[in-house]
Amino acid sequence: MLKSELPRKAVYRLSIYQRCLSLLQDNGVERVSSEDLSKAAGVKPAQLRKDLSYCGPLGTRGLGYPVESLRITIEKVLGSHRLQPVILVGAGNLGSALLRYQGFRKEGFEILAAFDQNPGKIKTPIEHTPVYDVVDMPAFITENKVKMAILCVPVANAQDAANQLVQNGIQGILNFTPAVLHVPEGVVVNSVDLALELESLSYYIR
Amino acid sequence: MLKSELPRKAVYRLSIYQRCLSLLQDNGVERVSSEDLSKAAGVKPAQLRKDLSYCGPLGTRGLGYPVESLRITIEKVLGSHRLQPVILVGAGNLGSALLRYQGFRKEGFEILAAFDQNPGKIKTPIEHTPVYDVVDMPAFITENKVKMAILCVPVANAQDAANQLVQNGIQGILNFTPAVLHVPEGVVVNSVDLALELESLSYYIR
Repeated sequence: MLKSELPRKAVYRLSIYQRCLSLLQDNGVERVSSEDLSKAAGVKPAQLRKDLSYCGPLGTRGLGYPVESLRITIEKVLGSHRLQPVILVGAGNLGSALLRYQGFRKEGFEILAAFDQNPGKIKTPIEHTPVYDVVDMPAFITENKVKMAILCVPVANAQDAANQLVQNGIQGILNFTPAVLHVPEGVVVNSVDLALELESLSYYIR
Repeated sequence: MLKSELPRKAVYRLSIYQRCLSLLQDNGVERVSSEDLSKAAGVKPAQLRKDLSYCGPLGTRGLGYPVESLRITIEKVLGSHRLQPVILVGAGNLGSALLRYQGFRKEGFEILAAFDQNPGKIKTPIEHTPVYDVVDMPAFITENKVKMAILCVPVANAQDAANQLVQNGIQGILNFTPAVLHVPEGVVVNSVDLALELESLSYYIR
């Protein structure tokens, strides 16, 4: 199927199903019902069945899903079967914090390098990730065929940095700044706004 | 209006409008059109008008919104006018990284303390935030009237930790684990899954 046909929210959920299936497989489980899998993933069974319909025909009704082959099928649909190179732009407080976080690599992403304007940070690796001057970023992206970037620059520099990333071939940006980024069609931005998540929670506190 | 009447997504967007308005106010702007404000916030004008309708009657058609009074009105609706105490549970790689991130405080949240099971980490403050033994957590929550927690424990411990938080009066959890948390009604969970955000991006990379 064409990538554009798969809704963005379905891509998220398929990743979650894939993780649940990996966990089941690690625990020696061979088949799982749609009820159990949907509960583990925190979705309604109808949602699970709809999402899995994007993966083509699967299993026999009443027998549940075969864990290993469903995991492999989803992996093929998502294309998440090899380590993807990523760069990080802006090695300030949050950027440095993310470089120290080991979870990205575990899920198949390798932060090859970080870039910063501040010469004080440059050439001092953070958790084995080198920090280079941002002027060297275009060449690095090209040489290493990097397609994804994590953006942690100050909000005032966010759009400029995004423009530069896109001009040099970056197709996906994980945006940790509060800026609303404007990018050309074909470039995808996922935004994570940590403070906004807390703000939204605090609204519900009595 | 009742808090339950305001949709969760509208709460997010109101926070975004509030930030845009603060920025305008800092720059001496007194009035803003709904077109300009919606563009800055990355939403459609109709969405903005609908969201602002939750705040009651506002301004005069054709004159744009008064920046300062709209900001204050939204602040009152959201109730985000004072520093909210937060605790962090699990001071591993990601937890420590978040403690080093200064952005929460800037947005009105103070991480009072972190809790961990690992005695090696305990009593060594990270960026001035003390790290205590998790056995002292219930008393701390009660004494400091904490209502919000950031959860960064290993996925296998996530539900147990969430249960303990809820039992001690926590009403909002910012969940950084990949676990799907089950909590009683009245408790709100916002989940941030950093690796999942990258996975979802990587799907769209050609």
